[in-house]
Amino acid sequence: MTFPAPIDPPARLLMGPGPISAYPSVLRAMSAPLVGQYDPFMTATMTETQELYRQVWATDNDATVLVDGTSRAGIEAAMISLVRPGDRVLVPIFGRFGHLLAEIAERAMAEVHTIEVPWGEVFPVSAVRDAIERVKPHLLALVQGDTSTTMLQPLDEIGELCRANGVLFYTDATASLGGNAFEMDAWGLDAATAGLQKCLGGPSGSAPISLSDAAVEVIRSRTRIEAGIREAGDPTASDFVRSNYFDLGMILDYWGPRRLNHHTEATTMLYGARECARVLLLEGRDAVIDRHRLHGEAMLAGVRGLGLTVFGDVAHKMSNVVAVEIPEGVPGDAARSAMLDDFGIEIGTSFGPLHGRVWRIGTMGYNARTDAVLQTLASLETVLRRFGAPVPAGGGVEAANDVYRAAS
Amino acid sequence: MTFPAPIDPPARLLMGPGPISAYPSVLRAMSAPLVGQYDPFMTATMTETQELYRQVWATDNDATVLVDGTSRAGIEAAMISLVRPGDRVLVPIFGRFGHLLAEIAERAMAEVHTIEVPWGEVFPVSAVRDAIERVKPHLLALVQGDTSTTMLQPLDEIGELCRANGVLFYTDATASLGGNAFEMDAWGLDAATAGLQKCLGGPSGSAPISLSDAAVEVIRSRTRIEAGIREAGDPTASDFVRSNYFDLGMILDYWGPRRLNHHTEATTMLYGARECARVLLLEGRDAVIDRHRLHGEAMLAGVRGLGLTVFGDVAHKMSNVVAVEIPEGVPGDAARSAMLDDFGIEIGTSFGPLHGRVWRIGTMGYNARTDAVLQTLASLETVLRRFGAPVPAGGGVEAANDVYRAAS
Repeated sequence: MTFPAPIDPPARLLMGPGPISAYPSVLRAMSAPLVGQYDPFMTATMTETQELYRQVWATDNDATVLVDGTSRAGIEAAMISLVRPGDRVLVPIFGRFGHLLAEIAERAMAEVHTIEVPWGEVFPVSAVRDAIERVKPHLLALVQGDTSTTMLQPLDEIGELCRANGVLFYTDATASLGGNAFEMDAWGLDAATAGLQKCLGGPSGSAPISLSDAAVEVIRSRTRIEAGIREAGDPTASDFVRSNYFDLGMILDYWGPRRLNHHTEATTMLYGARECARVLLLEGRDAVIDRHRLHGEAMLAGVRGLGLTVFGDVAHKMSNVVAVEIPEGVPGDAARSAMLDDFGIEIGTSFGPLHGRVWRIGTMGYNARTDAVLQTLASLETVLRRFGAPVPAGGGVEAANDVYRAAS
Repeated sequence: MTFPAPIDPPARLLMGPGPISAYPSVLRAMSAPLVGQYDPFMTATMTETQELYRQVWATDNDATVLVDGTSRAGIEAAMISLVRPGDRVLVPIFGRFGHLLAEIAERAMAEVHTIEVPWGEVFPVSAVRDAIERVKPHLLALVQGDTSTTMLQPLDEIGELCRANGVLFYTDATASLGGNAFEMDAWGLDAATAGLQKCLGGPSGSAPISLSDAAVEVIRSRTRIEAGIREAGDPTASDFVRSNYFDLGMILDYWGPRRLNHHTEATTMLYGARECARVLLLEGRDAVIDRHRLHGEAMLAGVRGLGLTVFGDVAHKMSNVVAVEIPEGVPGDAARSAMLDDFGIEIGTSFGPLHGRVWRIGTMGYNARTDAVLQTLASLETVLRRFGAPVPAGGGVEAANDVYRAAS
């Protein structure tokens, strides 16, 4: 190996399903100098970041923190802390990430029950109601936006259903938070997790999480302060969480007034997570959601203007990503490579049954902007034509521009 | 809350037991733009980072990767992937982090056996041998440097002992790696974990890990590819790891040629981890260890020159941190606050029996340098005098300078 030079990534416009290009101010925040773990500036920054994320989640939950890991770290922390071995967990699956929730619940030794709809659809409330009444789960785990299919599951009527049946309601909003409506308290959620690398416009590696009082009560009933820092009178529940790193009780004690040593907070990721929330709230929560809607509509019109067929139930699509069927005869991966190599633009394919069948094109965070949308459409037009697909000249850019004109 | 401004941390010289001030080039690396998860640049950077860490660990282990989380994420990944429920784990404890290894092993449902020496000492090889022969563990888990006591456990004769007894040998080197000798292969280690926030000079949030072929064999015997991406013929062991996030089999498949989707690699932390290893290897592995030894000796001489008593068995101290007893009558926490508030210098206290009894002063990574050592000693002298401790004028700086003069 030649001795490597300082990191110098190529220019990339990340228009896939995420991770996407971070906001420049998030990147700047992540080069800020470090401070000590219990520096007053550090603890104040942690507290401030909690308050910012309460606003992002639309919640009053005191228990609003970050888990130090990627989005699935947040999922596993929620699952393993809220679910005791043998507890029933209901997972409605409408894509790859529903399978992931079931998988993680199973590893947490839950009794996992699933219901499924075909990829490209979401669940009607009635299907969730029937399953809750049949399974009587301890926890309902339901992704909001499944990036594998681009579908957005409506959650607004499900909290009430859960409350009426004594079920904890958990959602993973990694793919959707910031780009689509999300109302933690109004929708009656007990736990929600996310990552930074989608609409929040940061890098993967920090997982915002929020927990209702009911969720915290379950977690507190399982508290065991770790040996080495345990003091007389500290709780040591016998059904303690079978993970130290993901024991949300200890994570809450670290973020809370007791500041009990657990992990060493990932300072640079904290700076990044804080800036993601800060830029979102500075622009305005609703304004950011509207921006995602506008550019999502422009991209949707644009791909249709190129003659592409959109995958799935468009009425239930997330604002921030669209899946299109790869036209007959076009080699999907070669076309994606041409987008990357010639134009520096990344688009994605998908998982499982959709791998090689669809491309996924995102418009999120920093990249939910006109120039990013139009560059992607113009480049995609060129690439489609090169691979022999019939494509109307300028059809994509024109259709997107129609959306922008109508909105202005 | 007033709407917060962009992050702007106060000037700090972090001379505690870690986290410490990052190398400036590491901070710069962490503001580099993101690329996609399967961008050729991304996968090349992952591969390059693996090769850099093989050199840092002094190993040929193919299975040398990062776990996306803080150092204890690496510990938990090693423990939960290598230990089946009911397996015997032997943990020799000589400080707070030995307790942590035992705690994490217990949460992994191991049958945990411990031996202890008083804080401030390390284990003679004979004590480890006796315990191995008595307990016959599946895994020996032993920290190399326990930051709570500053002690460095000699590991060089223990690998052979483990091999002879069919025991897997795991160490956590978070506090010591980069600042003290470490020889993964020569010492016969099967697993080793670390963090960036000590001698490697980066932020917390990424955990380098390396695994021998024997360790990988145990992990592979438990492989279960997760639902949602599992294909026909993929393994689904019944004694699968009871964590998805920390299943090293899946993490290795993500870093390996199959590039099987698991988490979304924390790109910015990857950039930081890569730069930590790069600057270390650019300066030279031995040169960095020598630098830590020199500045550690200067700090040791300096604190003695201030009339302070060093805690523990100095012959077995890590190079990169020293613990001193807080002089009678000096309020330890108030003095630390004065160091921080007046001089912008952070020093630490410790945990459990040593909390409020010692200060810990680090000289590691970027801060293993003359100006950092001398500023700390001069400032500490002022603070000690203010709190009424008898202290020889200039005694700390002078003693440290004697060490520098003798070395030059």
